[in-house]
Amino acid sequence: MAVRVDLNISLDGFATTTDQTPEEPMGQDWGRLVAPYVATRTFRARVLHETDGAGTTGVDDKYAAAYFEGIGAEIMGAGMFGLHNFPDDPDWRGWWGEEPPFGVPVFVLTHVSRPTLQMAGGTSFEFLSAEPADVLARAQAVAQGKDVRVGGGVTTARQFLKAGLVDQLHVGITPILLGQGIRLWDDLRGLEADYSVTSEAAESGVLHLTYRR
Amino acid sequence: MAVRVDLNISLDGFATTTDQTPEEPMGQDWGRLVAPYVATRTFRARVLHETDGAGTTGVDDKYAAAYFEGIGAEIMGAGMFGLHNFPDDPDWRGWWGEEPPFGVPVFVLTHVSRPTLQMAGGTSFEFLSAEPADVLARAQAVAQGKDVRVGGGVTTARQFLKAGLVDQLHVGITPILLGQGIRLWDDLRGLEADYSVTSEAAESGVLHLTYRR
Repeated sequence: MAVRVDLNISLDGFATTTDQTPEEPMGQDWGRLVAPYVATRTFRARVLHETDGAGTTGVDDKYAAAYFEGIGAEIMGAGMFGLHNFPDDPDWRGWWGEEPPFGVPVFVLTHVSRPTLQMAGGTSFEFLSAEPADVLARAQAVAQGKDVRVGGGVTTARQFLKAGLVDQLHVGITPILLGQGIRLWDDLRGLEADYSVTSEAAESGVLHLTYRR
Repeated sequence: MAVRVDLNISLDGFATTTDQTPEEPMGQDWGRLVAPYVATRTFRARVLHETDGAGTTGVDDKYAAAYFEGIGAEIMGAGMFGLHNFPDDPDWRGWWGEEPPFGVPVFVLTHVSRPTLQMAGGTSFEFLSAEPADVLARAQAVAQGKDVRVGGGVTTARQFLKAGLVDQLHVGITPILLGQGIRLWDDLRGLEADYSVTSEAAESGVLHLTYRR
């Protein structure tokens, strides 16, 4: 029943990018940040639903596969679901497609009231406004004894980290300097005191760091 | 004749600490930041002049040993020499002891005029006020074909990085969150474009990242 956070961040600590434009709704930085993750066989199969077995199979893929293992429920901020993209469209079902990669109940933190969405592949999206500990209790209640992931974005993840609710934090540090965005590490001085640390370097240059309670 | 920078930084990118007090002139953060480096056999032999062969001999020590190899001259800011500690004492010879670990000519960037210091073990300290490219030319002229290191502090290192003068940047990322200090990565967006990257994880949890031209 561990609570887990997994994020991709840049070497200078940015986990959310801010270079989005109407022409490039994801921005360019995001693609560079997650490129090694997107290149993995796990991501291509699980998120893109590719069936050709293509993709990298090294250290990055090991972490990508672990990302999806043992999760019974997920919590995310409104931005990660995609609520900010079409805030006025009640029919918008998020940017994860009709078969999102989660496969579990997902709790989306938002002040907007919306009906629960049932997607293909076992994913549901329930929208609620709640404190971290309260939404976590709800997620754990439906996780069937498995772990709960706080998926993101960075502001949501940091909120749970600051509240001391996270048992395992994994970051994949892409060795690029973005110089702009939202920092994961702000206001978390001394976080390491509650954890042991594991470090591993991937063939891609990505540095994988895990804090475990 | 490469120009090299080697720094220890925290996971949140702080390379200089700011928690110094009169009672603790180094502060507590600095000790935590460099603990894995200070624990190496190389540091203990080369900087502390210990002769018992004690210290770690893993990945951290490999980088510690490489730090001292092939350097023909060094450039540092006034703070790294220790000028800020006793600014009004013309007899202050820095905090590196009578036999500093450099063993080469060292150029100390300062607006204060001071006579050159000749120390034991081949180290000299010459004080000068100059632009990065100019002091680099002076250092290369005495480096006898070897590399020049820009030792620090972080403001000096960043100045040379921004000027495009650095051929190899190695950072040892200690997996702690300081939350305060001076950031290495500020204002260096896109630096990686000029380099290839190598990543390696040490037994201590320190992540070693090297940008090479």
